[in-house]
Amino acid sequence: MSEVRFAAVGVLGAATDARVTEPMRQLIQLLDAQGIAVVLADDNPLEPDLSHHPIEQLVNEVDLLIAIGGDGTLLSIAAHAVRADKPLLGINRGRLGFLTDVSPTEMQTKLNAVLGGEFSTSQRSLLAARICTANGRELTATALNDVVLTREHAGRMLDFATYVDDRFVNAHAGDGLIAATPTGSTAYALSCGGPIVQPDLDAIVLVPICPHTLSDRPIVLPGRSSIRVVAQERGGTPGEIHCDGQLLGPLGAGDELIISTSDRQLTLVHPPKYDYYELLRSKLNWGRSERLPTDSTR
Amino acid sequence: MSEVRFAAVGVLGAATDARVTEPMRQLIQLLDAQGIAVVLADDNPLEPDLSHHPIEQLVNEVDLLIAIGGDGTLLSIAAHAVRADKPLLGINRGRLGFLTDVSPTEMQTKLNAVLGGEFSTSQRSLLAARICTANGRELTATALNDVVLTREHAGRMLDFATYVDDRFVNAHAGDGLIAATPTGSTAYALSCGGPIVQPDLDAIVLVPICPHTLSDRPIVLPGRSSIRVVAQERGGTPGEIHCDGQLLGPLGAGDELIISTSDRQLTLVHPPKYDYYELLRSKLNWGRSERLPTDSTR
Amino acid sequence: MSEVRFAAVGVLGAATDARVTEPMRQLIQLLDAQGIAVVLADDNPLEPDLSHHPIEQLVNEVDLLIAIGGDGTLLSIAAHAVRADKPLLGINRGRLGFLTDVSPTEMQTKLNAVLGGEFSTSQRSLLAARICTANGRELTATALNDVVLTREHAGRMLDFATYVDDRFVNAHAGDGLIAATPTGSTAYALSCGGPIVQPDLDAIVLVPICPHTLSDRPIVLPGRSSIRVVAQERGGTPGEIHCDGQLLGPLGAGDELIISTSDRQLTLVHPPKYDYYELLRSKLNWGRSERLPTDSTR
Amino acid sequence: MSEVRFAAVGVLGAATDARVTEPMRQLIQLLDAQGIAVVLADDNPLEPDLSHHPIEQLVNEVDLLIAIGGDGTLLSIAAHAVRADKPLLGINRGRLGFLTDVSPTEMQTKLNAVLGGEFSTSQRSLLAARICTANGRELTATALNDVVLTREHAGRMLDFATYVDDRFVNAHAGDGLIAATPTGSTAYALSCGGPIVQPDLDAIVLVPICPHTLSDRPIVLPGRSSIRVVAQERGGTPGEIHCDGQLLGPLGAGDELIISTSDRQLTLVHPPKYDYYELLRSKLNWGRSERLPTDSTR
Repeated sequence: MSEVRFAAVGVLGAATDARVTEPMRQLIQLLDAQGIAVVLADDNPLEPDLSHHPIEQLVNEVDLLIAIGGDGTLLSIAAHAVRADKPLLGINRGRLGFLTDVSPTEMQTKLNAVLGGEFSTSQRSLLAARICTANGRELTATALNDVVLTREHAGRMLDFATYVDDRFVNAHAGDGLIAATPTGSTAYALSCGGPIVQPDLDAIVLVPICPHTLSDRPIVLPGRSSIRVVAQERGGTPGEIHCDGQLLGPLGAGDELIISTSDRQLTLVHPPKYDYYELLRSKLNWGRSERLPTDSTR
Repeated sequence: MSEVRFAAVGVLGAATDARVTEPMRQLIQLLDAQGIAVVLADDNPLEPDLSHHPIEQLVNEVDLLIAIGGDGTLLSIAAHAVRADKPLLGINRGRLGFLTDVSPTEMQTKLNAVLGGEFSTSQRSLLAARICTANGRELTATALNDVVLTREHAGRMLDFATYVDDRFVNAHAGDGLIAATPTGSTAYALSCGGPIVQPDLDAIVLVPICPHTLSDRPIVLPGRSSIRVVAQERGGTPGEIHCDGQLLGPLGAGDELIISTSDRQLTLVHPPKYDYYELLRSKLNWGRSERLPTDSTR
Repeated sequence: MSEVRFAAVGVLGAATDARVTEPMRQLIQLLDAQGIAVVLADDNPLEPDLSHHPIEQLVNEVDLLIAIGGDGTLLSIAAHAVRADKPLLGINRGRLGFLTDVSPTEMQTKLNAVLGGEFSTSQRSLLAARICTANGRELTATALNDVVLTREHAGRMLDFATYVDDRFVNAHAGDGLIAATPTGSTAYALSCGGPIVQPDLDAIVLVPICPHTLSDRPIVLPGRSSIRVVAQERGGTPGEIHCDGQLLGPLGAGDELIISTSDRQLTLVHPPKYDYYELLRSKLNWGRSERLPTDSTR
Repeated sequence: MSEVRFAAVGVLGAATDARVTEPMRQLIQLLDAQGIAVVLADDNPLEPDLSHHPIEQLVNEVDLLIAIGGDGTLLSIAAHAVRADKPLLGINRGRLGFLTDVSPTEMQTKLNAVLGGEFSTSQRSLLAARICTANGRELTATALNDVVLTREHAGRMLDFATYVDDRFVNAHAGDGLIAATPTGSTAYALSCGGPIVQPDLDAIVLVPICPHTLSDRPIVLPGRSSIRVVAQERGGTPGEIHCDGQLLGPLGAGDELIISTSDRQLTLVHPPKYDYYELLRSKLNWGRSERLPTDSTR
């Protein structure tokens, strides 16, 4: 819990999405009724009388950012929030997300609590990704969930080698590789066999995607690790790097991908009674196994 | 659907279990009201005026067996039903099971349909298991779900070799091995990484339990296969064989376990509109992934 | 073993690959020395004095096809062999493949045996794939290993529904789906968590690729099944269909993919003492677990 | 590398095991030739002229402990080494272990380097386990690899609940649970689907064993976490707790198991050029995939 109050709030999301429009309107009214200044993105058609700014500028003029949408919406805002060092709260427009953990139906109650100073925060690490091409070009991005190496074309395997702190780890063949933060461990990495990593553990998970060698398994590394991925030539397909689902660029033979923990963190704002494991139980159907027969026999 | 009608029905289950007593009473009344003779097990304290017989005798005197309870209850009755070649229908006393696929709330409607001749049947294969000890002793049993080799004591690995149709397959180390029917593929074998096998495929699945070698993977065999498992000496722990969760006997070094498809099948009776994949979707939470965010981002 | 002798043999493979040229020369000499007519592909620069024909014609003029290369080479020849109903033998130019199971070092001995009538054959089923687009276009191909639905672009999930024999199975989200023959069960499907399927089991395996729902597991179906995959619209990425690694075409929203077992089979020729499980043990490192400590403790 | 020299060394292992006797003799001679005092266990029949002491006393009288055997031998010595805060080096009597990483063939070279001061050390965390029974009894032990909850009897599932730092995590049903150190992440936990955890990450991995719910996945926790496991009543089987494969005691309904990182660490001594990932590559067959066809096709 905190004593911080918010004088200006940026409200972000796909305002033209029918499922977002209505909760966004309600949110703006709720904030306005409390005398809080609301700032919207410049492409947001709602409330033309309010301040509208490009997101790069908006984040500097508010004390709190609120994302309305799915986890993907929050992911797309995270880098801006981090750059301006502004806390971010997510409201889902349907069922809960891992990151957008306030539902529209409880928005009013929970928002009032947050605006009244009742909230907790969690610091989430990001990954910094850098592609260094064989001919000297550099491309960089950060990711709250994951940096993913995949094949540009299906049908052939990717070949690549991994190094941690300049020590050779393995030569891989398969569909690719995920480097995930603890936050991203419950996203794509989980579908590929990675473990769940509690968000306050300073760690990075490397998860091979459909690896050719069956003993090529997920590895959990200290957050301070420097990871290097080198694409290899073998008549295979070129690779592509995505950060939080956004294309960063291709990774051809001889190109290198460098991944490390970013030196800046995201501050997520959670309403009172936020419980990470309750969210997991809900999202992963832990409490509802219909397969469980009532007499202990599987 | 079938024209067969049932003049006498055996009703089986743990009658003293509070969750079973009431649906069993209702079932007996429902059958009685239709002029159907009801036969109960000799240890069933309900309805002392009705016929009560040991299960071995009971199965010969009825046209249909109805099991009330969980899948475990039906499993314990299956061998008797097979021996007497009588069809078996399962009523769950709580949530649906894979085998007990009628719920108490829909019992009346579905039973009336079945008794009126509206039902389908599915033939389910069983496994025949035989332990042949090094000193010539034999123990046999059948299993509707699975024959399982596990460790008698935890803390050490089991060592064993497998042969299919007398060809050597692999030398395994780990927690044990499951041989499952298609019916059992959604039971313990699924928890150990085995595939789902559609019940009408004539096949046996071998699933190593927590194998030491990571490439020691499930194998699907033709139903006609003869499987031999030989326990090996390596300072390890002795093994134990369970059939459908019931202990058959120990498997010491040099002992052999022979598994094949039984030459008799179980006839399961399903009410109208039974749908195997609908059951799977319900039991495996396929239709309810809360993890699925609404904007396509994981 | 068989009494069949081969009067004319087609020798196929990437003759310009340095690792193929030499064993191919040796093979041609070996065949020639036995008075067997050798036929080569029209793009093969070796032995200009021998008959060279396009592969479509070549397969009709020989009694046996020999592929030299990796499993990929054999896969690319399989459909031609099936169409002409000619047996196919695979020689690997390096380490053994699952399909190219004769090594160059043992080529002479094993080939002489085969040519002398000492061999076994195994019939391998193929899958027939058909894309039916929403606007009525059809694309068809067969596959010895697998028919694979993947994403055209990474970064987003594919949404698709599956039906077996017109019964709805599941609505999936993830990287895609593999339909594999028993032959293909040890290829890509194995990397994605599918089981090994013994080649003489008449079955098809459906393996979801990195599924979003963790209980979305591989399903083994009878070989006679008709599988329908329907791409779904959800702001996701379009899909692509590959047969044995070759692009068949895109699968957009509303398009359907129909998969069934082909009515023609491939006849693989194996040298004497071919042992499927010995090949598995070798390829999957089953006999060489360095992780196995010598005192039974993991 | 270090300037520390060793004046007295304790040599431990199953001296009567034929594979241990000879390397142990050589080791003693090697140490003796350098003027280093050798101390043996009191049940060691070799070299009766040397000092022999119970291990509890022995560890106090030496500067270095050397274990000869498999990883199991080193595990059984680790707690003694930790208690006396003495470094431990492992020599395998056959193939390398994860912990016994010097082979007999290179023993002389590597030992001479270590004795000459050329070595590295790695600090390995241990787990402290405490069973608190419903009637107030306590049992405690430490583990270098893992604390494992398994079923006392196979055939039925275990039911148990987990808590981390007093927050409820999940109610599990299945074969049990592993709490592993990073060191133990490559042992039993790996066979059960857990990730590899780099040894210098301060973390604990919880790995459910064959869980009934398919989304019940491994969780990686900060090393400072306090884990509580509560056995639940459901007509199931009682549980058993093993620490590094040694039985600590039963875990009945209502009993609790408390697991945390021990406040003492083990100092492992590695010869020059020790490389964790090289060991992984060797033990997990990473560099030797025979399944990898030479033309990039799976």
